[in-house]
Amino acid sequence: MKLATIRTATGTAAVRVDDDAAVELGATDLGEFLAWPDWEAAAQDADGPRHEVAGLDYAALVPRPEKVFCVGLNYRTHILEMGRELPRTPALFAKFARALVGAYDAVELPAGSQQVDWEAELGVVIGAEVRHATPEQAGAAIAGYTVVNDVTARDFQYRSVQWLQGKTFERSTPVGPWLVTDAQPGEISCEVDGDVVQEADTADLVFSPVDLVAYISQIVTLVPGDIIATGTPGGVGHARTPPRYLTEGSKLVTRVEGVGELRNTLVKGN
Amino acid sequence: MKLATIRTATGTAAVRVDDDAAVELGATDLGEFLAWPDWEAAAQDADGPRHEVAGLDYAALVPRPEKVFCVGLNYRTHILEMGRELPRTPALFAKFARALVGAYDAVELPAGSQQVDWEAELGVVIGAEVRHATPEQAGAAIAGYTVVNDVTARDFQYRSVQWLQGKTFERSTPVGPWLVTDAQPGEISCEVDGDVVQEADTADLVFSPVDLVAYISQIVTLVPGDIIATGTPGGVGHARTPPRYLTEGSKLVTRVEGVGELRNTLVKGN
Repeated sequence: MKLATIRTATGTAAVRVDDDAAVELGATDLGEFLAWPDWEAAAQDADGPRHEVAGLDYAALVPRPEKVFCVGLNYRTHILEMGRELPRTPALFAKFARALVGAYDAVELPAGSQQVDWEAELGVVIGAEVRHATPEQAGAAIAGYTVVNDVTARDFQYRSVQWLQGKTFERSTPVGPWLVTDAQPGEISCEVDGDVVQEADTADLVFSPVDLVAYISQIVTLVPGDIIATGTPGGVGHARTPPRYLTEGSKLVTRVEGVGELRNTLVKGN
Repeated sequence: MKLATIRTATGTAAVRVDDDAAVELGATDLGEFLAWPDWEAAAQDADGPRHEVAGLDYAALVPRPEKVFCVGLNYRTHILEMGRELPRTPALFAKFARALVGAYDAVELPAGSQQVDWEAELGVVIGAEVRHATPEQAGAAIAGYTVVNDVTARDFQYRSVQWLQGKTFERSTPVGPWLVTDAQPGEISCEVDGDVVQEADTADLVFSPVDLVAYISQIVTLVPGDIIATGTPGGVGHARTPPRYLTEGSKLVTRVEGVGELRNTLVKGN
């Protein structure tokens, strides 16, 4: 089942996206919908107003999540090829909700950055409140998977030892188009202007979605609509010789097999 | 003028705290109140239900801010005495709203941490939406000052290069009791079980409140209720020989002259 937040003439709406139509679920966005205790049954039974799939205008999957956790280096092959040891705990950092945009929206280039880079990631969406989760509870708290591109201003990221300021620029992070409740995520890839720049298997994650939910829930309660961006594989532009960055007009395609695809054009932000 | 969020028999309420009484402002919390375009005049004119000051039960100053930005090393004297150069840009990291508690609430010791430490800080509260602020606009966007203790689980903070996981434990960060709209913040201090462990002058900040608002607003829009914790001076427990940490029953007093005082007892969290 695929669930999303779309923009309609009267605001946003949570929808179930079927092959032939998107069906409204009765909540203004997916964050509100996932807070319903019976959201899964409600999504299956929904029979609200319908929209043609072809014309859907996707908002950020969860427009105002309480929390967005991101993970640093988390692809085994990439860590080992860089000569590093596998980490024993995930490197966690945050992103604020204002950074998020929809799956096909323009992504804004921060005015002050000359080094805007891509980071294709598998996204995990929380569907139930969970704290100190066992692996089983962590798995049950995952509503499903989505696609994230953790677009990063490298110059700002490395201005200090803390990465936040390169990671939370306004309208910089596409997430969506939907969450898939029954996905088995496969290959992850990123294309820039038609060139495949990242390609990996989500099975290569050091910390799996279940590991991450269990770990983070030791620190703080995860709640419906929270998003975890699980980290990016090798192939980012900043690590290339010469480096390659996103510029005005760059076409960014981010894909997770079995989940979905983001298609974004970079525009001048402010 | 002092503004706060208190707990009442029917939920929380934004109040103006006068010498003789706290007067309700008509909003459920200070975050909601500061989003009123005319909040300053409304606060001056308020004439809602009144509460005795002595019995006030303070909630976190803004219970659900959209954003909490924290700043790393920011006291000049402390940076220089550690032999470091003054930073050219602030080190910014995040804290999620679930970490916040009220001025006299219990502060929870994370179950998995053996190294819980104090960090007295001057807090800045945003009172108007602002983006790419000039210094003048930044100053105008500051609603006032408050007191924060950025209580930190050092073992979790240093598990990876990113500090977030030591900084955002559930119910670990007292903030309040009020914001003062017309304060001139002076000395900052922290006491643990009656011992003065931190003592500095907020005038010694490398990046002032205005600098921080202007800088952060280049990255993302700051909105009413957002909080900036401006960094802590020297004297934290982790840097002592031997190190000193907070444990069950520790009494923590955090004070900013001209602003206010937090009084918290550490309890076992989960």
